[in-house]
Amino acid sequence: MTTVKPEIQGVAGFRVAGVHAGLKKDGALDFSLIVSESDCVAAGVFTRNKVKAAPVLLDMQRLAENPLGIRAIATNTVSANACTGALGLRNARATADLLAEALGIHAEQALVMSTGVIGTHLPMPKIARGIEIASSRLAQDWRAAAAGIMTTDTRPKLGSVTVESPSGRYTVAGIVKGAGMIAPNMATMLSAIVTDAALERPQAQAALTAANKQSFNRIVVDGDTSTNDTVLLLANGSSGVSLTTAEDLAEFQGALNALTRYLAQAVVRDGEGVTKFVTLQIINAASEADAEKIGQTIGASVLTKSAFYGSDANWGRIMAAAGRAGAALEPDSSSLWVAAGEAAAADDLGLLIFHNGMPTDYQEADAAAIMAGAAMTFTLDCGLGQGSATIWTCDISHDYISINGDYRS
Amino acid sequence: MTTVKPEIQGVAGFRVAGVHAGLKKDGALDFSLIVSESDCVAAGVFTRNKVKAAPVLLDMQRLAENPLGIRAIATNTVSANACTGALGLRNARATADLLAEALGIHAEQALVMSTGVIGTHLPMPKIARGIEIASSRLAQDWRAAAAGIMTTDTRPKLGSVTVESPSGRYTVAGIVKGAGMIAPNMATMLSAIVTDAALERPQAQAALTAANKQSFNRIVVDGDTSTNDTVLLLANGSSGVSLTTAEDLAEFQGALNALTRYLAQAVVRDGEGVTKFVTLQIINAASEADAEKIGQTIGASVLTKSAFYGSDANWGRIMAAAGRAGAALEPDSSSLWVAAGEAAAADDLGLLIFHNGMPTDYQEADAAAIMAGAAMTFTLDCGLGQGSATIWTCDISHDYISINGDYRS
Repeated sequence: MTTVKPEIQGVAGFRVAGVHAGLKKDGALDFSLIVSESDCVAAGVFTRNKVKAAPVLLDMQRLAENPLGIRAIATNTVSANACTGALGLRNARATADLLAEALGIHAEQALVMSTGVIGTHLPMPKIARGIEIASSRLAQDWRAAAAGIMTTDTRPKLGSVTVESPSGRYTVAGIVKGAGMIAPNMATMLSAIVTDAALERPQAQAALTAANKQSFNRIVVDGDTSTNDTVLLLANGSSGVSLTTAEDLAEFQGALNALTRYLAQAVVRDGEGVTKFVTLQIINAASEADAEKIGQTIGASVLTKSAFYGSDANWGRIMAAAGRAGAALEPDSSSLWVAAGEAAAADDLGLLIFHNGMPTDYQEADAAAIMAGAAMTFTLDCGLGQGSATIWTCDISHDYISINGDYRS
Repeated sequence: MTTVKPEIQGVAGFRVAGVHAGLKKDGALDFSLIVSESDCVAAGVFTRNKVKAAPVLLDMQRLAENPLGIRAIATNTVSANACTGALGLRNARATADLLAEALGIHAEQALVMSTGVIGTHLPMPKIARGIEIASSRLAQDWRAAAAGIMTTDTRPKLGSVTVESPSGRYTVAGIVKGAGMIAPNMATMLSAIVTDAALERPQAQAALTAANKQSFNRIVVDGDTSTNDTVLLLANGSSGVSLTTAEDLAEFQGALNALTRYLAQAVVRDGEGVTKFVTLQIINAASEADAEKIGQTIGASVLTKSAFYGSDANWGRIMAAAGRAGAALEPDSSSLWVAAGEAAAADDLGLLIFHNGMPTDYQEADAAAIMAGAAMTFTLDCGLGQGSATIWTCDISHDYISINGDYRS
């Protein structure tokens, strides 16, 4: 079992900073830099939204053109630089140019990420200030770097894994921001993951894509996906460990999977107004894709999330959401359990509340007691095939509405 | 322009009742009957959810077997009789049997609808009592019949259209319940529509399907679709008017379209916790299907709905939702307007806030003033083709969460 530490002690060859660039009105950290002392192999996963923010478009281009020589990532908050047309792209490029100048690297070596309100232009003087301050304070304060990318997040989210491989010791570490607008295919979520191991580019991209599939693509906060979703991976090789054998790569994949799952779950835990952490285990669906669809539809159902919030074991809403997921489903072959906690043991799925199309004679008080807790796990057995998927989601509370009813002011 | 009256004076050959059968704890009306003195041609549109309630399965079967001889519809609240397996189907059949006995008709002539909590069995003694009381009080109190199908609805919803055709005068009238769980493809929405015109069965079904497409399928309250959605149409011919010519049928379609739109919009207006009525006009999309997808995705976006609630002109969320709708979309060819009121004039779409991929220099105060009203219309010009669709939706408020956090208690 890979252990993920909730902190980052340092990753060889990387320095970071999180600073206040004047973007946020309250003086909080609002701008973040990650810089490598040497060229990195880079990989990325981006939003599938048709409306892609300028930084997403720029990073996609950079990764296509210079995936072996990335040196730095700058992230700003407050403005998403999305729906900003040609000026938005110019501003994203200008950010990379300023960063390259400050660090003495080429512009094509700089990546950018943005989060905040859609449709506002980057305030370039403040971006320039952020780059100036941050590049002069590069060190090992990863917590500040994680804080510098927060929007409605209530806490910095970061983690690391140390791998003792036969070839030597290396680290995989990452920061993430999330909060609202989190849904399948990532949502307004930015994550930067770094490692001091050396990887070939195809292996780096394959590892990130696979890790993303079982982590950031399996969380749902509110069903909205954003214009800015980005997960970047930089590998600089400063540990001296090169990952080339199948064993090495598998070990790296395991570490990356564990780290991204940890970060993804941290996003759900810190969702806007979240009071409950809910695990949805969909098993024996017709296919893995069907299991994912069912879990994601349940996780995005506002009705279901309201019931989670109210600790109401209104499991009919779960079945109704499953039935509209666009996946194969037969009520008469379906069964549903609920258990306390963030996971259920395979041999004890908890309280059986719906069995082969019929409610059981469970006691409402027993279900309510389970749902009163801060974490619960529903297991839906579709009784159709071999497909399974686990989705992590949360409730929707009054606070979510308050936060999002007036986010911009 | 067809005028829809917000009441039903009576429809020849139909009698109705709405009574308290003891289902609701507070003594409110909770059971409803619609009865025709003669055989009706019947048509229906049902939920596409894979988890279909027992009354839906029974009505689908009845309409397949006896679509020319329907006499009555019984509707109960409090229990949805969904996810109730074989016992649920037996109870739905028993309801029809009891109704047939009370009215002196055959069981195959009776339809049933249910709404309420999923996964609870019908309390048959109360259902029997409802049938007994209601069948002894059949009259013209359509408001009571509409009240008798309400769940979290705050008011009965009913309407009628009188048509003066060359062949004579006839009426089309209907009742509806909605509230939460309203989404494309109908959601927890029950509607019964009757006419005293005579129609052939194929024409009746075609007219209902077409009317449904431009009304109940174009409203979104919360994105959840239910196990029980049903719209039924009964035509008994008691007016002596037979609709057979193309002109007659077109006139009927016009009346049915207007009535169903009126009822559909009434459902949105009375959505759970709704404070704003929002019209989404999607124009120049690649196809009508794309326009529908885009409108429905915007309408179901919790983030966007929260912004409506907060009177926050956070139009970026609208574009982000449009971009994940699974439809063709090009930000650079898209433009967005917002106007006060429930519709926008074709030659004055209101305040242009986003134009060809860029925010305009509109004044935030102007947008906020529009959004502060109880009704607003967004027009999204996709600049791609000829497809258009109008979706009616609403905001999501604290009250929605309160209502749905503890619906069952």
